[in-house]
Amino acid sequence: MNDIIKILREFNEARNWEPFHTPENLAKSIAIEAGELLECFQWDSDYDLEALSDEIADVMLYCLMLSDKIGIDIKKEMLRKIEKNGVKYPVETCREE
Amino acid sequence: MNDIIKILREFNEARNWEPFHTPENLAKSIAIEAGELLECFQWDSDYDLEALSDEIADVMLYCLMLSDKIGIDIKKEMLRKIEKNGVKYPVETCREE
Amino acid sequence: MNDIIKILREFNEARNWEPFHTPENLAKSIAIEAGELLECFQWDSDYDLEALSDEIADVMLYCLMLSDKIGIDIKKEMLRKIEKNGVKYPVETCREE
Amino acid sequence: MNDIIKILREFNEARNWEPFHTPENLAKSIAIEAGELLECFQWDSDYDLEALSDEIADVMLYCLMLSDKIGIDIKKEMLRKIEKNGVKYPVETCREE
Repeated sequence: MNDIIKILREFNEARNWEPFHTPENLAKSIAIEAGELLECFQWDSDYDLEALSDEIADVMLYCLMLSDKIGIDIKKEMLRKIEKNGVKYPVETCREE
Repeated sequence: MNDIIKILREFNEARNWEPFHTPENLAKSIAIEAGELLECFQWDSDYDLEALSDEIADVMLYCLMLSDKIGIDIKKEMLRKIEKNGVKYPVETCREE
Repeated sequence: MNDIIKILREFNEARNWEPFHTPENLAKSIAIEAGELLECFQWDSDYDLEALSDEIADVMLYCLMLSDKIGIDIKKEMLRKIEKNGVKYPVETCREE
Repeated sequence: MNDIIKILREFNEARNWEPFHTPENLAKSIAIEAGELLECFQWDSDYDLEALSDEIADVMLYCLMLSDKIGIDIKKEMLRKIEKNGVKYPVETCREE
């Protein structure tokens, strides 16, 4: 993921886009792209693989830009979040349902 | 990212959650979590770092589950999407604006 | 609002769209259109009045279709929700902040 | 709808919330509430009627506040949008599909 973050930084700097990429604007962008991703499933559960892959990539790229902007190690945060979820939803309780 | 995908698979299998994780349900989950992420900025541009990190992680974890479910290599897709964006927004045009 | 609901029913029936308008699909449509509305403000707080009006109308039209589909009187529900919010956020507490 | 807009104005003024209700913040709020509405359908197509009604009301209340803030007559805009959609999707073409 660090490779991609490095490429994104160069991509955005080359285009003078950095000033637009405030945390708030990136959060809006993630929600906008998540809406486009959902559009792949608007009327049924079939999907076009390339269109869907494009939209997942867009959501993730903005997530990586936001993580970079606020200075967090997103891999570490994901592992921490999985652990937190493990406490919230213990295996035993979930299996019983 | 492959490490995290592996951990997520085990996590979900242990809880019998696999049947709920259809591509469509994961797409809805990404949009729901993107809304929660946006909530960190509902009334202003300040944010709580831990709350925001949690929400970015949630969005990304669902994106990784969806990528895994539909069988794509998300790193490759992100690199492809950056290249596509580079063609759509050439450096020269963006700098002139 | 009842006029618009009647017009929407005729509009959708004429196009054979009724079968696609399940509550779940309409909920997805509302989230998709809310993303497009947010796109009017992606990089700053300026907006194009006609584009924004179009998007608000789209969100509200899907909300009216969903209300009609699940058989609720949306005006009554909005008044009920305002009252509920009034209890949750009493005037005195809010003014003190 | 004008009754509800009047009630909302008084509600928000009484709480000193007007300064927070910029068009941009209301657009974010609509997207956030649309995510909560979608959550009613996260894992299946069943729903709780009261929870769902609450969320539709929330989305519509923010839409009415935004319409009021930017000075549009939302009923007129909805009728205009339905007409625009009628041109985009003529009855004949839709029936043939």
